[in-house]
Amino acid sequence: MEWIFHNPVKIFAKPGGIQQLPAILAGRTCILVTFAEAQEIGLLDRVRAMLGAQLVRVIQDVQPNPDVDWLGPLYDSVQREQADVPCIVALGGGSVIDTAKALMCRTPTGRFDELLASLQAGEILPAGAHRALIAVPTTAGTGSEVTPWATIWDRRAGRKHSLHQPWTWPEAAVLDAELMLSLPGGTTLASGLDALSHALESIWNVNRNPVSTGLAVTAARRIMNVLPALMRDTANLALRAEMAEAAVLAGLAFSNTKTALAHSLSYEITLQHGVVHGIACSFSLPRVLELALGADAAADEALLSIFETASRDVAVARLQTFLHELGVETDPAHYGVGADQWDQMMRHAAQGPRGRNFIRAGVHA
Amino acid sequence: MEWIFHNPVKIFAKPGGIQQLPAILAGRTCILVTFAEAQEIGLLDRVRAMLGAQLVRVIQDVQPNPDVDWLGPLYDSVQREQADVPCIVALGGGSVIDTAKALMCRTPTGRFDELLASLQAGEILPAGAHRALIAVPTTAGTGSEVTPWATIWDRRAGRKHSLHQPWTWPEAAVLDAELMLSLPGGTTLASGLDALSHALESIWNVNRNPVSTGLAVTAARRIMNVLPALMRDTANLALRAEMAEAAVLAGLAFSNTKTALAHSLSYEITLQHGVVHGIACSFSLPRVLELALGADAAADEALLSIFETASRDVAVARLQTFLHELGVETDPAHYGVGADQWDQMMRHAAQGPRGRNFIRAGVHA
Repeated sequence: MEWIFHNPVKIFAKPGGIQQLPAILAGRTCILVTFAEAQEIGLLDRVRAMLGAQLVRVIQDVQPNPDVDWLGPLYDSVQREQADVPCIVALGGGSVIDTAKALMCRTPTGRFDELLASLQAGEILPAGAHRALIAVPTTAGTGSEVTPWATIWDRRAGRKHSLHQPWTWPEAAVLDAELMLSLPGGTTLASGLDALSHALESIWNVNRNPVSTGLAVTAARRIMNVLPALMRDTANLALRAEMAEAAVLAGLAFSNTKTALAHSLSYEITLQHGVVHGIACSFSLPRVLELALGADAAADEALLSIFETASRDVAVARLQTFLHELGVETDPAHYGVGADQWDQMMRHAAQGPRGRNFIRAGVHA
Repeated sequence: MEWIFHNPVKIFAKPGGIQQLPAILAGRTCILVTFAEAQEIGLLDRVRAMLGAQLVRVIQDVQPNPDVDWLGPLYDSVQREQADVPCIVALGGGSVIDTAKALMCRTPTGRFDELLASLQAGEILPAGAHRALIAVPTTAGTGSEVTPWATIWDRRAGRKHSLHQPWTWPEAAVLDAELMLSLPGGTTLASGLDALSHALESIWNVNRNPVSTGLAVTAARRIMNVLPALMRDTANLALRAEMAEAAVLAGLAFSNTKTALAHSLSYEITLQHGVVHGIACSFSLPRVLELALGADAAADEALLSIFETASRDVAVARLQTFLHELGVETDPAHYGVGADQWDQMMRHAAQGPRGRNFIRAGVHA
C-alpha cells in the first residue's frame, strides 16, 4: 500500500514528429548527439536544416555502450567549449541517449573525473545546473527516453557505472515512428522484446505500484499483439507507431521500478556469451514468469490478465509460444548455458542489484 | 497516432503518509489551505505540530466551489502578507485544492483583479513566479491532486472561470487513505463515481492517448471492483487505500484529456436540479457509453475490456447494474429531467467545451 510514482517527461508522439524539434527547443541552442549512420541516411542534414544556427555542435561517433575512455575526453571538451549551451538533443538508440544523459550533467569544475568520482560515490549532484535533454529515439524498446538513468561502461576496470540523478529525466521525448521504418528486423525484434521484458519485470518487482502495473499490463498486451505483425511487415508505419507507443508505456512502467531478475540474468549472458541485450533479457521470461506467479495476488492478476487466462501454466506456455513463434529459443542451452551453469547463474543473478528487485527476492530455481 | 502525454506530479501513497509533509517541504515555509472540520477532527493540530514555524498561515474557511467574491480578498491578502512563502499545502477535497491552485499564481501586481482578467482573456502567465503546491486529498475522486486546473466561480456574474496554466501542476500529491476513513458514505459514493466518470470520459475522448487509456482501463476496473465493497465497509483502510489509488489513476488519465459528454451534461443538472457533482456526472454514464461504443476500434476494445465482454449491450447493461446496485438511478426522470428536456440537454451539452471532447463530437441522442 506504500508507493511513489513520478515521471515528468513530456511525451510527443507523431509520425514525422521530429519536425517539432524547433518548437520544443523554443529558441534555445543545442548539441546534437546521434549515431554515425544518421549522416548516411540524410537524417543529420534534415536536423541541420531544421535547426540552423541553434545547432552548435554535432557528436556523431557514439559507440554502442559508451565507455569512459571515449566519453571522458568528449565530456571535457563539451563542458569547455559549449559551457553555455542549455540543451542536448539525443537522436538515436539507447547508447546515444545514455551518452546524452552524461552530457546533461555539469560538474563544478566541468571535468569528467569529477562526474565519475561522484557516480562511484553514489553522490547526489546539485540540481539546477544541468542541461535539458530532448530524446528522439530511433528504436522502440530501450525506454531510455522516459527514464532518468544511463549506463556508462569502464571496460578497462571491468565495471559499469549507473548515472541516476533526481534531475536526469529528459525534458521531452519525441516518438517519431517514421524514424524507425528502416530499422533492421533483428534490431526491431531485440528492441521489442527488451520492451516486453521491461513491462513484465516492472510487475514482478518489489518496487511495483498501481501506476506502473497499470501501464505495464497495457504495454505487454500491446507488444504481444503488435510485435509478430511488425516482424512480418517492418515497413508498416502504423505498426511501427503502435510498437513505439507500447515501448514507451513499458518505459513509463519500469521508469519507477527498474528491472528485475530477467535483466539481472542477461548481463552475464551478454558478457559471457555475446547474446544481444534484447534477446538476453527476454529468452528467460517464461522461466521467470513461472517463478513470479504465486508470490502476490495483485501481481498474479496483472500477469494473468496479459495472457488472458486464469491458469498459471497456460500463461507460461503462452509466453513461451509467443517467443518461439518469433524464433527466440527459450532453452538456456541454446545460448551455451548448461543446466548446472544455469542454476548457478540464477543464484548469482538473484543476488545482483536488479535481482533483488524480483518479487521473490532470494528465491532461485 | 498523434498525441501528447505529460504529468509531472510526484505521487506519494501511504496510509499515514501525511507525516511525510516535512520531508517533502524540505525546510520550505508554507501556507495551509484546509476545510473547517480539519480543526474539529484534530487534523489541523496534527499539521501544526508537524510543521511548527514552517507553517506561516492557515486558511480554513474554504467554501464549496470557491467564488471570486470570497477568493479575491483572500488572494490579495496572501500576496501582500505572505509574498515570499514558496509553498502551499492543500489538505481537503476538490474545493480546497482549487483554492490552493489560485493561490499558487503570482501576478505582477499581486492583485486578484489581474489574475481574473488574465483568466478571462485566456492568457498564459509567465512561469517561474508561482508557488509550489503540495496536495493532500481527503476524498478519493476529484483527481485534482494530479491535474493542472481549477474552477473558480463567479455566482454574481453567473459564470465560471477555468484556471489552467502550464505550471499549475501540484509538485506532489500525498495519498493518505487514513485521512479518508471518516468520509461519510454519501461523499464516498459521489467521489468514487466522479473518479469512474473521469476514467470513462478520458477513453471516449478526442484527446485520448495510449497512456491515458491504459491508466483509465486500470482505474475503471479497480473502481468497479472496490467501490461496492467500500460502501459496505467504509472504515476499511485497505479498501480506502485501494479506492484512493484507483481515483488517482483516473486522475492521471483525465489530466491529459479533460472530461467529455457526461461531465458536460452534469453542469446543467447540478445547477438546475441541485444534484451533487459525483452523481450528476455518473448517472448518465450507461447512456453515454452506448453512444460512445462503435466510434473507434481501440476505444471500443478499451471500454469492453473494462466490462469483460465482447458485447456492447452487455457492457452497457453491466454499467447500469453497477450503478443500480449502488443505489444510483440512471433514468434522467429521477433527477427531474423529462424525456424531451433530456434530448435538449444532450444537444446543449454536446456543444459545450467538454461535450466537444466526446469521441462522437456533434452526435446527440
